[in-house]
Amino acid sequence: MEPDGSRGPAHRPGPVTRIRVRQVSGSDVRDRRDDLATEEPLEIRLLAGGESRTVAITMRTPGADFELAAGFLHGEGVAGPGDIAAIGYCTDEDLEPEARYNTVTVRLALPAMPDIASLERHFLTSSACGVCGAASLGALRDRCRPPAARTAMTVSPKVLYGLPALLRRAQGVFGRTGGLHAAGLFTPEGALVGVREDVGRHNAVDKLVGWSLLGGRLPLDDHVLLVSGRASYEIMQKAMAAGVQTVCAVSAPSSLAVDVAREFGMTLVGFLREERFNIYAGEERIAT
Amino acid sequence: MEPDGSRGPAHRPGPVTRIRVRQVSGSDVRDRRDDLATEEPLEIRLLAGGESRTVAITMRTPGADFELAAGFLHGEGVAGPGDIAAIGYCTDEDLEPEARYNTVTVRLALPAMPDIASLERHFLTSSACGVCGAASLGALRDRCRPPAARTAMTVSPKVLYGLPALLRRAQGVFGRTGGLHAAGLFTPEGALVGVREDVGRHNAVDKLVGWSLLGGRLPLDDHVLLVSGRASYEIMQKAMAAGVQTVCAVSAPSSLAVDVAREFGMTLVGFLREERFNIYAGEERIAT
Repeated sequence: MEPDGSRGPAHRPGPVTRIRVRQVSGSDVRDRRDDLATEEPLEIRLLAGGESRTVAITMRTPGADFELAAGFLHGEGVAGPGDIAAIGYCTDEDLEPEARYNTVTVRLALPAMPDIASLERHFLTSSACGVCGAASLGALRDRCRPPAARTAMTVSPKVLYGLPALLRRAQGVFGRTGGLHAAGLFTPEGALVGVREDVGRHNAVDKLVGWSLLGGRLPLDDHVLLVSGRASYEIMQKAMAAGVQTVCAVSAPSSLAVDVAREFGMTLVGFLREERFNIYAGEERIAT
Repeated sequence: MEPDGSRGPAHRPGPVTRIRVRQVSGSDVRDRRDDLATEEPLEIRLLAGGESRTVAITMRTPGADFELAAGFLHGEGVAGPGDIAAIGYCTDEDLEPEARYNTVTVRLALPAMPDIASLERHFLTSSACGVCGAASLGALRDRCRPPAARTAMTVSPKVLYGLPALLRRAQGVFGRTGGLHAAGLFTPEGALVGVREDVGRHNAVDKLVGWSLLGGRLPLDDHVLLVSGRASYEIMQKAMAAGVQTVCAVSAPSSLAVDVAREFGMTLVGFLREERFNIYAGEERIAT
């Protein structure tokens, strides 16, 4: 694939990859150049107490890599505010140039490597032989501090109706690839606070939470999170860990996403599009 | 959440979960019942040579669980045709009833547990410190047999234009939740051979490949695979392992999906909708 040399230092993958594509429309066939969302693996390493350990390898769109690493670790309960001493790319000269920007090392301000057994699996098994949604909720309950006293935040339907367009507009350059999920953070009055994108929808949320963590914005209890796709268990888990109380999705939620919202007192809105939406949990925060 | 008791045995989660939802449209607010795609964890266990090992826990939509397990193992290079002796749910009476149908045990027809190190990570690191797209392709090359002699299969644009509607129609009952990804298998003439759905798009492909594996239909080199969403590295990897030569996506491919297609001589079509599509690789199989 021809790289788009116009972005970033040499060999550093950018968020967009330019390629040649054959476009077929009805009986018309033409070759032209087009932009794709870049997908490259990212290895996340932890450094603590003189020990180094790879905790995740995820496919992601390059850009906001430090935020992605920080947000991922936050969602897994490994790193809260103040726990991260430094984040950097791997600078090993022996490395293939393409690989240097695909490894992020997070140095923790901790005397020893934290217990990261839970990172091996995203959920714990509840017994010798079995996993289930209820056990996943139980694992979440054990790992996360109980939500702080809930604020009296409410959002009007009129504000919600406007969020998807704000998110799309903010996607800017990336939007042209059509291949990126977006996550946006808004005030209850509908002002856009931040937006992040990725080929993986969980990564977009991790980037946004990591940005908030590194910028001292956590917890996000007075914000609305909007995701451009569906709301799954993992999205809700990451949002809850960041203190988000109101999650909106342009598409459908899953059954377990609704379970998490109801269990932890969150508001979950789905199918938010064209002056319509459904409330699956926490109706009291929507001023209908 | 209120379960939908009408499906399957008691406590066995069905693909659809019925809940109460508040629907807001303009200034109209009403409470009604709605269907959600069920999301529950599935634990996949391997049995071989008297040893038992959990190799994956994935969030999935219940249904076609044996196919999901078989397809997942096939995509990871663990189980080919003839390698699977039996597949069953966990029947441990000590288990919470909800958990019994969330664990699938696959007994391999092998004298010992295969090397499943690669299952721990979906890609291999290329060196002491680094991962990159090229290394991911290299790992694929090492793990998969080189593609068989390529067939002269070609598909006409007219056939391709018709596939998304066929897939949507086949989604049937599940389609009403709006929350499921679909993967469909077609003949080069556009006849639907099989369709599977899931909250996770990789799972939908795993189910379809597993169904093909268990039914003795592999390799799928004379078939077209259509996915309802985007085409990523993982989708292409699973398709390639199943021998699929032509992959179509309703949405965008990622850069690494195109890399895989070009590296392994596959055809990749994206943005297949409304009598239009783009060809990103393998133009020779599309009879334009």
